[in-house]
Amino acid sequence: MRKLINDPFDAVDEMLDGVLVAHGQQVTRTPGGRGLVLRHRNPRRRVGVITGGGSGHEPAFFGYIGPGLADAVAVGNVFASPSATPVAEVAREVARADGVIFLFGNYEGDIMNFGLAAEILADEGIMSETLLVTDDVASSRDVIGDRRGVAGDVIVLKAAGARADEGADLAEVLEAAGYANARTRTVGVGLGPCIVPTAGRATFELPEGSMDVGMGVHGEAGIRRAPLATADEVAQELIEMILRDGCSVEDPLTIVINTLGATPLMEGYILLRAVVRQLEASDVQIHRAVVGEYVTSLEMAGLSVTLVETDAELGRLLDAPASALAAPGLGAIA
Amino acid sequence: MRKLINDPFDAVDEMLDGVLVAHGQQVTRTPGGRGLVLRHRNPRRRVGVITGGGSGHEPAFFGYIGPGLADAVAVGNVFASPSATPVAEVAREVARADGVIFLFGNYEGDIMNFGLAAEILADEGIMSETLLVTDDVASSRDVIGDRRGVAGDVIVLKAAGARADEGADLAEVLEAAGYANARTRTVGVGLGPCIVPTAGRATFELPEGSMDVGMGVHGEAGIRRAPLATADEVAQELIEMILRDGCSVEDPLTIVINTLGATPLMEGYILLRAVVRQLEASDVQIHRAVVGEYVTSLEMAGLSVTLVETDAELGRLLDAPASALAAPGLGAIA
Repeated sequence: MRKLINDPFDAVDEMLDGVLVAHGQQVTRTPGGRGLVLRHRNPRRRVGVITGGGSGHEPAFFGYIGPGLADAVAVGNVFASPSATPVAEVAREVARADGVIFLFGNYEGDIMNFGLAAEILADEGIMSETLLVTDDVASSRDVIGDRRGVAGDVIVLKAAGARADEGADLAEVLEAAGYANARTRTVGVGLGPCIVPTAGRATFELPEGSMDVGMGVHGEAGIRRAPLATADEVAQELIEMILRDGCSVEDPLTIVINTLGATPLMEGYILLRAVVRQLEASDVQIHRAVVGEYVTSLEMAGLSVTLVETDAELGRLLDAPASALAAPGLGAIA
Repeated sequence: MRKLINDPFDAVDEMLDGVLVAHGQQVTRTPGGRGLVLRHRNPRRRVGVITGGGSGHEPAFFGYIGPGLADAVAVGNVFASPSATPVAEVAREVARADGVIFLFGNYEGDIMNFGLAAEILADEGIMSETLLVTDDVASSRDVIGDRRGVAGDVIVLKAAGARADEGADLAEVLEAAGYANARTRTVGVGLGPCIVPTAGRATFELPEGSMDVGMGVHGEAGIRRAPLATADEVAQELIEMILRDGCSVEDPLTIVINTLGATPLMEGYILLRAVVRQLEASDVQIHRAVVGEYVTSLEMAGLSVTLVETDAELGRLLDAPASALAAPGLGAIA
């Protein structure tokens, strides 16, 4: 393994020790150790905004704590859901008059554990609502509710955070999150595998020079394997998949190019250029475009394209001020 | 190659096309195409602050354009100096009453081309000074002036940008940059190679499970190859090298953990934890610590530790407000 770690079973907790060293002025850690909470939270919020999920996707999810974004996150082991304990711990700390909203990708383990926490919290009188992010077009072509959440997490979180900052109530924040999610579609392409520290071997095989179109952020198989094409060709394929899925181009599009851990930013910007040329040829307007490591997969190689139908309402939320604890240059997205 | 690109010879220019899509509201591109200039520059500056170097180190260098940081950058091919043309182009745009300062890593090609630009500019009546960043302890153990510049670029740029924002003159900005550089030491460890697009093969061999202590950001050989040790062991070795080099611990230290392209942030935070434990055992005070991809090397795997002797003067400059175009969560560093 090309990993600079100590005991693989300590990797997540030692990472969080490091997070507290770097960001201890901004966040606190819950007694159980797997929850992080923003110190100075917006008092105007009537709803605490909570996200979380497995580790290995850094800067997701702790990097998205910050003003305009998440009040807290719950942290799981690598590619595994957090347990209900840190979810409940952070919810107790950040719950406001209207309770909390949970935003996370549509994965079984997360649904189970956040759901268990919601039950515990309900018994304590803390209301919660949950929005499952389902932006990964390739993960289920027909049933949108079966889709996984990938880079679209950032869009949904930004929209919900901005709405919460406006003093919206729980139903309104949930509505904004759902509105953003319904207008957000992502397709990724995997170029190379990663190794989960405690497993010690690659999560999947993908020969050098191959690509897996539609691959998920844990290496879930996509819909097509082929020799790696050019950036222009891949952009065309990904954009066509998203447009065929029903993405409207009547409103301007926000574009997120997400590079996985091992893929240089250079390729992200090259892909953005290709995507925009593809879209502009069809007279599509661009609201904003960003490139960076938003939701990674350890040292997996690959990228994804996210298109967001950005009407005036969603544009207002995505352009709201925000500051991420440890995220790349997000422009107005965070 | 696991690269999503088009023609490898177009990679840098296509990347810059993408940069303009994402950041066109913040920067303009020079007619020659290889210079980027911040649109809204601080009118209080008496000195334009310019950096640059080879591509492949993204977010360095264009990502460090922004308020409090660089007014402009000149962009070379992958791992190659920019020519004098974009250097002179951007200098003409951002020069102020006192001219410009060039800040870049100590590499032959950059020295030649920035130097040639300085001569051209002098003929046009534009003054310039140059500060070579020389933070890479392992690149020359005895002669500091022979050392290469690596992640310390960010510290020197931040200090110079903050001093320029205070309205300092050219000599004062140069002094601040030199002051920061003299107090900044970095040692890196390489874990795996990268491929320059136009070369199509790895820049060096490094067997899986090996490390090269002291490796440079273009894969320059370090001082020792060995089986990959634990994060705690590597932290100890790197810290001892930096302390033996004369790093004073009388003032608090600023710590920068720089992850190269393919190394996950998780490992950066684990290394930060190890570094801080090592330092705290010796009663060293920490001014601030950051983790992120500051100066990468395409998809090279590896990390570096930078320690900065941070007295009150340098602390003031490093804590000044700044905003990087496309850099990771830099806290107050940028």
